[in-house]
Amino acid sequence: MTETIERALRAIKFDADGLVPAIAQQHDTGEVLMVAWMNRDAVQVTLAEGIGCYWSRSRGKLWRKGESSGQTQRLVEFRLDCDGDTVLLLFDQEGVACHTGRRNCFFRAWRDGAWQEIATPLVAPETLYGA
Amino acid sequence: MTETIERALRAIKFDADGLVPAIAQQHDTGEVLMVAWMNRDAVQVTLAEGIGCYWSRSRGKLWRKGESSGQTQRLVEFRLDCDGDTVLLLFDQEGVACHTGRRNCFFRAWRDGAWQEIATPLVAPETLYGA
Repeated sequence: MTETIERALRAIKFDADGLVPAIAQQHDTGEVLMVAWMNRDAVQVTLAEGIGCYWSRSRGKLWRKGESSGQTQRLVEFRLDCDGDTVLLLFDQEGVACHTGRRNCFFRAWRDGAWQEIATPLVAPETLYGA
Repeated sequence: MTETIERALRAIKFDADGLVPAIAQQHDTGEVLMVAWMNRDAVQVTLAEGIGCYWSRSRGKLWRKGESSGQTQRLVEFRLDCDGDTVLLLFDQEGVACHTGRRNCFFRAWRDGAWQEIATPLVAPETLYGA
């Protein structure tokens, strides 16, 4: 790891599991695309390669966004909050961010006493991940 | 708790500590204001009162945003992600969201190998919280 990236990492306060939540936001529209988790290695890859890389808690491994689906994220800016325990990633998102094929993951809204779907898939998940 | 809010809560997957991360976003500009944590009670208050209410992990109690500072959040929409484990709150934020007096908490950006402050306080913290 380069000394420069070590310096970036020193400001980030990882939790007891070595993780921080990371918000992915489309840089020009402000759309919140998804939230995932990063460990030190994911931060390093994201900064070094300029892409969205996370720690998959379910699979227990690093996950370069788009490695299966082709829906990659090009890093525009890496930001950190006042407490150093949450990351905001500004990206240019290729295609869709959500595994359901929707542009973003926050497609359920609480309206009139019920969860309503406010976005539809732009691409079928089978197209993204195979049948 | 009303049956309606019980229905909202059933879709949310709280973690082992009974919490979910909540992103607060300014509804019209898309600015990500802050990230905090919600437990069941915080979700209930947020929906019932139409304000931003969180669980303070450091103080171990419910926290109605603005109760000390006056910088309240009026709820515009409550959204939930595909996995049900992250909440996106669209607000109209009164004043500033960050305890440092900045409009939002993500004022540190990694540029040219260093953390740079990209926003300045709009109000002194002493004005918000007293000396």
